[in-house]
Amino acid sequence: MNIDICFTPNDFDDTKYSKYSAVVIDVLRATTSIATACANGCKELIPVRTVAEANKLKANNPDILLAGEREGLLIPGFNLGNSPFEYTREQVASKTVVMTTTNGTLALTKASAAQKVYAMAFVNAAAITSALQQNQDDVVIVCAGSEGRFSLEDTLCAGLLAERFSKTAKLSDTALAAQAMYRDFSAELLPRVAESSHASYLRSIGFEQDVMLCLQQDTLSVIPVFENGTITAWH
Amino acid sequence: MNIDICFTPNDFDDTKYSKYSAVVIDVLRATTSIATACANGCKELIPVRTVAEANKLKANNPDILLAGEREGLLIPGFNLGNSPFEYTREQVASKTVVMTTTNGTLALTKASAAQKVYAMAFVNAAAITSALQQNQDDVVIVCAGSEGRFSLEDTLCAGLLAERFSKTAKLSDTALAAQAMYRDFSAELLPRVAESSHASYLRSIGFEQDVMLCLQQDTLSVIPVFENGTITAWH
Repeated sequence: MNIDICFTPNDFDDTKYSKYSAVVIDVLRATTSIATACANGCKELIPVRTVAEANKLKANNPDILLAGEREGLLIPGFNLGNSPFEYTREQVASKTVVMTTTNGTLALTKASAAQKVYAMAFVNAAAITSALQQNQDDVVIVCAGSEGRFSLEDTLCAGLLAERFSKTAKLSDTALAAQAMYRDFSAELLPRVAESSHASYLRSIGFEQDVMLCLQQDTLSVIPVFENGTITAWH
Repeated sequence: MNIDICFTPNDFDDTKYSKYSAVVIDVLRATTSIATACANGCKELIPVRTVAEANKLKANNPDILLAGEREGLLIPGFNLGNSPFEYTREQVASKTVVMTTTNGTLALTKASAAQKVYAMAFVNAAAITSALQQNQDDVVIVCAGSEGRFSLEDTLCAGLLAERFSKTAKLSDTALAAQAMYRDFSAELLPRVAESSHASYLRSIGFEQDVMLCLQQDTLSVIPVFENGTITAWH
Protein backbone atom coordinates (compact mmCIF):
# COMPACT_ATOMS: atom_id res chain seq x y z
CA MET A 1 0.00 0.00 0.00
CA ASN A 2 1.37 3.40 -1.04
CA ILE A 3 0.51 6.76 0.50
CA ASP A 4 1.19 9.85 -1.61
CA ILE A 5 0.24 13.48 -1.04
CA CYS A 6 -0.50 16.30 -3.49
CA PHE A 7 0.16 19.62 -1.73
CA THR A 8 -2.21 21.33 -4.16
CA PRO A 9 -4.87 20.04 -6.58
CA ASN A 10 -2.56 21.01 -9.47
CA ASP A 11 -0.19 18.21 -8.46
CA PHE A 12 -2.93 15.62 -9.05
CA ASP A 13 -2.10 13.48 -12.07
CA ASP A 14 -5.18 11.75 -13.53
CA THR A 15 -3.25 8.88 -15.08
CA LYS A 16 -0.93 8.20 -12.15
CA TYR A 17 -3.76 8.07 -9.62
CA SER A 18 -6.54 6.42 -11.65
CA LYS A 19 -6.31 3.23 -9.56
CA TYR A 20 -5.85 5.03 -6.22
CA SER A 21 -8.33 6.02 -3.57
CA ALA A 22 -8.24 9.80 -3.17
CA VAL A 23 -8.76 11.68 0.09
CA VAL A 24 -9.61 15.37 -0.32
CA ILE A 25 -8.76 17.67 2.58
CA ASP A 26 -9.89 21.27 3.08
CA VAL A 27 -9.67 21.64 6.85
CA LEU A 28 -10.61 25.34 6.94
CA ARG A 29 -13.45 24.73 6.36
CA ALA A 30 -15.10 22.87 3.47
CA THR A 31 -14.37 19.25 4.37
CA THR A 32 -14.99 19.91 8.07
CA SER A 33 -18.41 21.30 7.13
CA ILE A 34 -19.06 18.39 4.74
CA ALA A 35 -18.24 15.87 7.49
CA THR A 36 -20.47 17.78 9.92
CA ALA A 37 -23.36 17.86 7.41
CA CYS A 38 -23.02 14.11 6.78
CA ALA A 39 -22.90 13.39 10.52
CA ASN A 40 -26.08 15.47 10.96
CA GLY A 41 -28.10 13.44 8.49
CA CYS A 42 -27.77 15.52 5.33
CA LYS A 43 -29.15 13.47 2.40
CA GLU A 44 -26.44 14.54 -0.07
CA LEU A 45 -24.05 17.38 -0.87
CA ILE A 46 -23.48 18.49 -4.44
CA PRO A 47 -20.27 20.50 -4.92
CA VAL A 48 -20.44 22.98 -7.81
CA ARG A 49 -17.86 25.45 -9.11
CA THR A 50 -19.91 28.63 -9.51
CA VAL A 51 -22.64 30.56 -7.75
CA ALA A 52 -24.58 30.56 -11.03
CA GLU A 53 -24.60 26.75 -11.15
CA ALA A 54 -25.81 26.64 -7.55
CA ASN A 55 -28.62 29.12 -8.27
CA LYS A 56 -29.67 27.15 -11.33
CA LEU A 57 -30.04 23.93 -9.33
CA LYS A 58 -32.07 25.82 -6.71
CA ALA A 59 -34.37 27.22 -9.41
CA ASN A 60 -35.15 23.66 -10.51
CA ASN A 61 -35.58 22.37 -6.97
CA PRO A 62 -36.55 24.96 -4.34
CA ASP A 63 -36.15 22.40 -1.50
CA ILE A 64 -32.38 22.32 -1.74
CA LEU A 65 -30.13 24.41 0.51
CA LEU A 66 -27.48 26.62 -1.05
CA ALA A 67 -24.20 26.71 0.84
CA GLY A 68 -20.66 27.96 0.49
CA GLU A 69 -18.42 31.00 0.62
CA ARG A 70 -16.47 33.56 -1.30
CA GLU A 71 -13.52 35.05 0.62
CA GLY A 72 -14.78 33.13 3.64
CA LEU A 73 -18.16 34.89 3.75
CA LEU A 74 -21.78 33.85 3.15
CA ILE A 75 -22.82 34.27 -0.48
CA PRO A 76 -25.79 36.68 -0.83
CA GLY A 77 -29.07 34.72 -1.08
CA PHE A 78 -27.51 31.47 0.15
CA ASN A 79 -28.85 29.50 3.12
CA LEU A 80 -25.55 28.49 4.70
CA GLY A 81 -21.99 29.81 4.73
CA ASN A 82 -18.93 27.62 5.15
CA SER A 83 -18.89 27.40 8.95
CA PRO A 84 -19.33 23.88 10.36
CA PHE A 85 -21.45 25.43 13.16
CA GLU A 86 -24.17 26.18 10.58
CA TYR A 87 -24.53 22.56 9.42
CA THR A 88 -26.77 21.52 12.32
CA ARG A 89 -29.20 18.60 12.27
CA GLU A 90 -32.06 21.15 12.27
CA GLN A 91 -30.71 22.75 9.13
CA VAL A 92 -29.46 19.83 7.05
CA ALA A 93 -31.21 16.56 8.07
CA SER A 94 -32.61 14.82 4.95
CA LYS A 95 -31.74 17.84 2.82
CA THR A 96 -29.83 18.17 -0.43
CA VAL A 97 -27.10 20.78 0.03
CA VAL A 98 -25.51 22.40 -3.02
CA MET A 99 -22.12 23.75 -2.02
CA THR A 100 -19.64 26.05 -3.71
CA THR A 101 -16.34 26.90 -2.01
CA THR A 102 -13.17 28.43 -3.37
CA ASN A 103 -10.77 25.52 -2.97
CA GLY A 104 -12.63 22.44 -1.73
CA THR A 105 -14.88 22.10 -4.77
CA LEU A 106 -11.95 22.33 -7.19
CA ALA A 107 -10.02 19.68 -5.26
CA LEU A 108 -12.99 17.28 -5.30
CA THR A 109 -13.45 17.77 -9.04
CA LYS A 110 -9.75 17.15 -9.74
CA ALA A 111 -9.65 14.06 -7.52
CA SER A 112 -12.68 12.50 -9.18
CA ALA A 113 -10.38 10.75 -11.68
CA ALA A 114 -9.41 8.42 -8.81
CA GLN A 115 -11.09 5.07 -8.08
CA LYS A 116 -12.87 6.36 -5.02
CA VAL A 117 -12.94 9.82 -3.41
CA TYR A 118 -13.33 10.57 0.30
CA ALA A 119 -13.71 13.95 2.03
CA MET A 120 -11.65 14.23 5.19
CA ALA A 121 -10.76 16.76 7.86
CA PHE A 122 -9.29 16.39 11.36
CA VAL A 123 -12.81 15.75 12.73
CA ASN A 124 -13.29 12.48 10.82
CA ALA A 125 -9.68 11.32 10.44
CA ALA A 126 -10.17 8.07 12.37
CA ALA A 127 -13.22 7.08 10.33
CA ILE A 128 -11.39 7.69 7.04
CA THR A 129 -8.34 5.80 8.33
CA SER A 130 -10.55 2.75 9.02
CA ALA A 131 -12.17 2.93 5.59
CA LEU A 132 -8.79 3.09 3.85
CA GLN A 133 -7.43 0.24 5.96
CA GLN A 134 -10.37 -1.89 4.93
CA ASN A 135 -10.10 -1.43 1.19
CA GLN A 136 -6.24 -1.42 1.09
CA ASP A 137 -6.03 0.63 -2.13
CA ASP A 138 -3.06 2.89 -2.73
CA VAL A 139 -3.99 6.31 -1.39
CA VAL A 140 -3.39 9.82 -2.71
CA ILE A 141 -4.26 12.65 -0.36
CA VAL A 142 -5.22 15.84 -2.19
CA CYS A 143 -4.78 19.01 -0.15
CA ALA A 144 -7.22 21.65 -1.37
CA GLY A 145 -4.68 24.38 -0.62
CA SER A 146 -5.45 28.03 -1.06
CA GLU A 147 -5.96 29.27 -4.61
CA GLY A 148 -3.33 26.91 -5.94
CA ARG A 149 -0.92 27.51 -3.09
CA PHE A 150 0.27 25.30 -0.25
CA SER A 151 -1.94 25.17 2.86
CA LEU A 152 -0.34 24.48 6.22
CA GLU A 153 -3.47 23.08 7.88
CA ASP A 154 -4.44 20.79 4.99
CA THR A 155 -0.92 19.37 4.84
CA LEU A 156 -0.87 18.81 8.61
CA CYS A 157 -4.12 16.86 8.34
CA ALA A 158 -2.61 14.83 5.48
CA GLY A 159 0.39 14.28 7.77
CA LEU A 160 -1.87 12.87 10.47
CA LEU A 161 -3.11 10.26 7.98
CA ALA A 162 0.46 9.53 6.85
CA GLU A 163 1.48 9.08 10.49
CA ARG A 164 -1.35 6.62 11.05
CA PHE A 165 -0.21 4.55 8.06
CA SER A 166 3.52 4.91 8.63
CA LYS A 167 3.92 1.40 10.05
CA THR A 168 1.90 -0.37 7.37
CA ALA A 169 2.32 1.57 4.11
CA LYS A 170 5.09 3.01 1.97
CA LEU A 171 5.12 6.80 2.23
CA SER A 172 6.17 9.01 -0.70
CA ASP A 173 8.53 11.95 -0.15
CA THR A 174 5.62 14.36 0.27
CA ALA A 175 3.97 11.93 2.71
CA LEU A 176 7.20 11.63 4.74
CA ALA A 177 7.39 15.44 4.77
CA ALA A 178 3.78 15.89 5.93
CA GLN A 179 4.19 13.18 8.55
CA ALA A 180 7.23 14.99 9.98
CA MET A 181 5.32 18.29 10.01
CA TYR A 182 2.42 16.70 11.82
CA ARG A 183 4.69 15.07 14.40
CA ASP A 184 6.37 18.39 15.14
CA PHE A 185 3.08 20.32 15.33
CA SER A 186 0.88 17.76 17.05
CA ALA A 187 1.57 18.64 20.68
CA GLU A 188 0.44 22.22 20.12
CA LEU A 189 -1.60 22.06 16.96
CA LEU A 190 -4.05 24.84 17.75
CA PRO A 191 -1.68 27.68 18.73
CA ARG A 192 0.71 26.90 15.91
CA VAL A 193 -1.89 26.46 13.17
CA ALA A 194 -3.37 29.76 14.35
CA GLU A 195 -0.17 31.33 12.89
CA SER A 196 -1.05 30.11 9.39
CA SER A 197 -2.21 32.64 6.84
CA HIS A 198 -5.73 31.24 6.37
CA ALA A 199 -6.37 30.77 10.09
CA SER A 200 -5.26 34.38 10.66
CA TYR A 201 -7.61 35.53 7.91
CA LEU A 202 -10.57 33.59 9.33
CA ARG A 203 -9.88 35.06 12.76
CA SER A 204 -9.81 38.54 11.26
CA ILE A 205 -13.32 38.07 9.82
CA GLY A 206 -14.73 36.66 13.08
CA PHE A 207 -14.35 32.88 12.69
CA GLU A 208 -11.91 32.06 15.49
CA GLN A 209 -14.31 29.44 16.93
CA ASP A 210 -14.38 27.74 13.54
CA VAL A 211 -10.61 27.32 13.56
CA MET A 212 -10.79 25.70 17.01
CA LEU A 213 -13.56 23.31 15.95
CA CYS A 214 -11.82 22.43 12.68
CA LEU A 215 -8.68 21.32 14.54
CA GLN A 216 -10.49 18.84 16.80
CA GLN A 217 -9.59 15.27 15.94
CA ASP A 218 -11.79 12.21 15.49
CA THR A 219 -14.99 13.74 16.83
CA LEU A 220 -17.21 12.55 13.93
CA SER A 221 -17.31 8.90 12.86
CA VAL A 222 -18.50 9.67 9.37
CA ILE A 223 -17.13 8.72 5.94
CA PRO A 224 -18.24 11.14 3.21
CA VAL A 225 -17.78 9.61 -0.26
CA PHE A 226 -17.84 11.66 -3.48
CA GLU A 227 -19.30 9.69 -6.38
CA ASN A 228 -21.06 10.75 -9.59
CA GLY A 229 -20.93 14.39 -8.57
CA THR A 230 -22.52 13.85 -5.15
CA ILE A 231 -21.22 13.40 -1.61
CA THR A 232 -23.05 10.99 0.66
CA ALA A 233 -22.17 9.37 3.98
CA TRP A 234 -20.89 5.84 3.52
CA HIS A 235 -22.16 3.24 5.96
CA MET B 1 12.38 40.32 7.68
CA ASN B 2 10.28 37.67 5.92
CA ILE B 3 11.31 34.12 5.11
CA ASP B 4 9.40 32.35 2.36
CA ILE B 5 10.04 29.01 0.65
CA CYS B 6 9.25 27.80 -2.88
CA PHE B 7 9.06 23.99 -2.80
CA THR B 8 9.84 23.94 -6.53
CA PRO B 9 11.27 26.54 -8.95
CA ASN B 10 7.81 26.77 -10.56
CA ASP B 11 6.52 28.45 -7.40
CA PHE B 12 8.99 31.33 -7.86
CA ASP B 13 7.15 34.54 -8.76
CA ASP B 14 9.44 37.10 -10.43
CA THR B 15 7.37 40.10 -9.37
CA LYS B 16 6.74 39.02 -5.79
CA TYR B 17 10.39 38.27 -5.09
CA SER B 18 12.12 41.02 -7.10
CA LYS B 19 13.26 42.77 -3.91
CA TYR B 20 14.14 39.57 -2.02
CA SER B 21 17.41 37.75 -1.59
CA ALA B 22 17.04 34.24 -3.03
CA VAL B 23 18.73 31.12 -1.70
CA VAL B 24 18.84 28.20 -4.13
CA ILE B 25 19.12 24.71 -2.65
CA ASP B 26 19.89 21.48 -4.48
CA VAL B 27 21.35 19.35 -1.69
CA LEU B 28 21.77 16.19 -3.80
CA ARG B 29 24.10 17.33 -5.23
CA ALA B 30 24.49 20.52 -7.28
CA THR B 31 24.69 23.17 -4.57
CA THR B 32 26.83 20.91 -2.35
CA SER B 33 29.25 20.54 -5.26
CA ILE B 34 29.11 24.30 -5.98
CA ALA B 35 29.93 25.10 -2.34
CA THR B 36 32.76 22.55 -2.42
CA ALA B 37 34.18 24.00 -5.65
CA CYS B 38 34.07 27.53 -4.22
CA ALA B 39 35.72 26.36 -0.99
CA ASN B 40 38.47 24.73 -3.04
CA GLY B 41 39.40 27.91 -4.87
CA CYS B 42 37.43 27.55 -8.10
CA LYS B 43 37.59 30.90 -9.97
CA GLU B 44 33.96 30.82 -11.12
CA LEU B 45 31.12 28.44 -12.00
CA ILE B 46 28.89 29.08 -14.97
CA PRO B 47 25.59 27.17 -14.84
CA VAL B 48 24.12 26.39 -18.27
CA ARG B 49 20.94 24.56 -19.26
CA THR B 50 22.19 22.22 -21.99
CA VAL B 51 25.16 20.01 -22.80
CA ALA B 52 25.39 21.80 -26.17
CA GLU B 53 25.83 25.20 -24.47
CA ALA B 54 28.55 23.75 -22.24
CA ASN B 55 30.40 22.24 -25.21
CA LYS B 56 30.20 25.54 -27.09
CA LEU B 57 31.81 27.44 -24.20
CA LYS B 58 34.56 24.81 -24.03
CA ALA B 59 35.22 25.13 -27.77
CA ASN B 60 35.86 28.86 -27.26
CA ASN B 61 37.98 28.35 -24.16
CA PRO B 62 39.68 24.96 -23.83
CA ASP B 63 40.93 25.78 -20.29
CA ILE B 64 37.50 25.52 -18.73
CA LEU B 65 36.25 22.37 -17.02
CA LEU B 66 32.93 20.87 -18.04
CA ALA B 67 30.87 19.50 -15.17
CA GLY B 68 27.43 18.16 -14.45
CA GLU B 69 25.13 15.19 -14.78
CA ARG B 70 22.22 13.62 -16.53
CA GLU B 71 20.28 11.06 -14.48
CA GLY B 72 22.99 11.45 -11.84
CA LEU B 73 25.82 10.25 -14.12
CA LEU B 74 28.88 11.90 -15.71
CA ILE B 75 28.12 13.38 -19.13
CA PRO B 76 30.30 11.79 -21.87
CA GLY B 77 33.32 13.99 -22.62
CA PHE B 78 32.90 16.07 -19.44
CA ASN B 79 35.67 16.54 -16.86
CA LEU B 80 33.58 16.28 -13.70
CA GLY B 81 30.30 14.69 -12.71
CA ASN B 82 28.03 16.03 -9.98
CA SER B 83 29.74 14.43 -6.98
CA PRO B 84 31.20 16.89 -4.46
CA PHE B 85 34.13 14.46 -4.03
CA GLU B 86 35.27 15.36 -7.55
CA TYR B 87 35.53 19.09 -6.88
CA THR B 88 38.95 18.89 -5.19
CA ARG B 89 41.44 21.73 -4.95
CA GLU B 90 43.66 19.87 -7.44
CA GLN B 91 40.83 19.80 -9.97
CA VAL B 92 39.16 23.19 -9.59
CA ALA B 93 41.57 25.76 -8.06
CA SER B 94 41.62 28.92 -10.22
CA LYS B 95 39.53 27.20 -12.88
CA THR B 96 36.33 28.22 -14.63
CA VAL B 97 33.79 25.40 -14.30
CA VAL B 98 30.83 25.23 -16.65
CA MET B 99 28.11 23.18 -15.00
CA THR B 100 24.87 21.70 -16.25
CA THR B 101 22.62 19.74 -13.90
CA THR B 102 19.01 18.67 -14.21
CA ASN B 103 17.42 20.74 -11.47
CA GLY B 104 20.00 23.06 -9.91
CA THR B 105 20.67 25.06 -13.07
CA LEU B 106 16.97 25.66 -13.69
CA ALA B 107 16.46 26.84 -10.10
CA LEU B 108 19.35 29.31 -10.33
CA THR B 109 18.02 30.69 -13.61
CA LYS B 110 14.52 31.13 -12.18
CA ALA B 111 15.81 32.76 -8.99
CA SER B 112 17.94 35.28 -10.89
CA ALA B 113 14.99 37.71 -10.91
CA ALA B 114 15.71 38.27 -7.20
CA GLN B 115 17.94 41.04 -5.82
CA LYS B 116 20.74 38.67 -4.90
CA VAL B 117 21.09 34.89 -5.34
CA TYR B 118 23.03 32.54 -3.07
CA ALA B 119 23.71 28.82 -3.52
CA MET B 120 23.27 26.83 -0.35
CA ALA B 121 23.36 23.25 0.89
CA PHE B 122 23.69 21.73 4.36
CA VAL B 123 27.50 22.06 4.14
CA ASN B 124 27.46 25.87 4.02
CA ALA B 125 24.23 26.65 5.89
CA ALA B 126 25.93 28.62 8.67
CA ALA B 127 27.85 30.82 6.23
CA ILE B 128 24.68 31.62 4.27
CA THR B 129 22.79 32.31 7.51
CA SER B 130 25.42 34.90 8.49
CA ALA B 131 25.31 36.56 5.08
CA LEU B 132 21.51 36.84 5.21
CA GLN B 133 21.59 38.16 8.76
CA GLN B 134 23.99 40.86 7.66
CA ASN B 135 22.01 42.19 4.73
CA GLN B 136 18.55 41.79 6.39
CA ASP B 137 16.68 41.49 3.07
CA ASP B 138 13.50 39.44 2.88
CA VAL B 139 14.50 35.93 1.87
CA VAL B 140 12.95 33.43 -0.52
CA ILE B 141 14.42 29.95 -0.47
CA VAL B 142 14.06 28.15 -3.80
CA CYS B 143 14.21 24.37 -3.55
CA ALA B 144 15.48 22.93 -6.82
CA GLY B 145 13.24 19.90 -6.40
CA SER B 146 13.26 17.01 -8.81
CA GLU B 147 11.97 17.68 -12.31
CA GLY B 148 9.35 20.06 -11.02
CA ARG B 149 8.42 17.90 -8.07
CA PHE B 150 8.93 18.33 -4.33
CA SER B 151 12.28 17.24 -2.91
CA LEU B 152 12.47 16.06 0.68
CA GLU B 153 16.16 16.86 1.20
CA ASP B 154 15.99 20.34 -0.35
CA THR B 155 12.99 21.23 1.79
CA LEU B 156 14.71 19.93 4.93
CA CYS B 157 17.70 22.15 4.19
CA ALA B 158 15.33 25.09 3.66
CA GLY B 159 13.76 24.13 7.00
CA LEU B 160 17.15 24.34 8.70
CA LEU B 161 17.45 27.94 7.49
CA ALA B 162 13.87 28.70 8.59
CA GLU B 163 14.65 27.24 12.03
CA ARG B 164 17.72 29.47 12.34
CA PHE B 165 15.61 32.55 11.56
CA SER B 166 12.52 31.52 13.50
CA LYS B 167 13.22 33.86 16.41
CA THR B 168 14.03 36.93 14.31
CA ALA B 169 11.97 36.71 11.12
CA LYS B 170 8.36 36.13 10.05
CA LEU B 171 8.00 32.70 8.49
CA SER B 172 5.49 32.04 5.69
CA ASP B 173 3.28 28.93 5.77
CA THR B 174 5.76 26.98 3.64
CA ALA B 175 8.61 28.14 5.90
CA LEU B 176 6.69 27.06 9.03
CA ALA B 177 6.08 23.70 7.33
CA ALA B 178 9.73 23.18 6.38
CA GLN B 179 10.88 24.26 9.83
CA ALA B 180 8.62 21.64 11.42
CA MET B 181 9.91 18.98 9.02
CA TYR B 182 13.49 19.85 9.85
CA ARG B 183 12.84 19.77 13.59
CA ASP B 184 11.28 16.33 13.34
CA PHE B 185 14.04 14.94 11.08
CA SER B 186 17.07 16.64 12.61
CA ALA B 187 17.99 14.07 15.26
CA GLU B 188 18.30 11.33 12.63
CA LEU B 189 18.71 13.22 9.39
CA LEU B 190 20.88 10.71 7.58
CA PRO B 191 18.89 7.47 8.05
CA ARG B 192 15.59 9.22 7.36
CA VAL B 193 16.71 11.22 4.31
CA ALA B 194 18.14 7.95 3.00
CA GLU B 195 14.47 6.89 2.58
CA SER B 196 13.83 9.72 0.11
CA SER B 197 13.41 8.86 -3.54
CA HIS B 198 16.48 10.73 -4.82
CA ALA B 199 18.78 9.45 -2.07
CA SER B 200 17.60 5.91 -2.84
CA TYR B 201 18.30 6.48 -6.52
CA LEU B 202 21.79 7.85 -5.88
CA ARG B 203 22.55 4.86 -3.65
CA SER B 204 21.38 2.52 -6.41
CA ILE B 205 23.89 4.04 -8.85
CA GLY B 206 26.79 3.90 -6.35
CA PHE B 207 26.73 7.35 -4.69
CA GLU B 208 25.92 6.43 -1.07
CA GLN B 209 29.02 8.32 0.18
CA ASP B 210 27.78 11.42 -1.63
CA VAL B 211 24.50 11.33 0.29
CA MET B 212 26.41 11.12 3.57
CA LEU B 213 28.68 14.04 2.65
CA CYS B 214 25.77 16.16 1.38
CA LEU B 215 23.97 15.86 4.73
CA GLN B 216 26.89 17.16 6.80
CA GLN B 217 26.14 20.59 8.23
CA ASP B 218 28.27 23.73 8.35
CA THR B 219 31.51 22.13 7.20
CA LEU B 220 32.31 24.81 4.57
CA SER B 221 32.35 28.51 5.44
CA VAL B 222 31.77 29.64 1.89
CA ILE B 223 29.14 31.92 0.36
CA PRO B 224 28.59 31.25 -3.35
CA VAL B 225 26.81 34.17 -5.04
CA PHE B 226 25.17 33.91 -8.48
CA GLU B 227 25.39 37.17 -10.40
CA ASN B 228 25.39 37.98 -14.11
CA GLY B 229 25.27 34.31 -15.00
CA THR B 230 28.29 33.35 -12.89
CA ILE B 231 28.78 31.91 -9.41
CA THR B 232 31.72 33.16 -7.38
CA ALA B 233 32.64 32.88 -3.71
CA TRP B 234 31.74 36.01 -1.79
CA HIS B 235 34.30 37.26 0.72
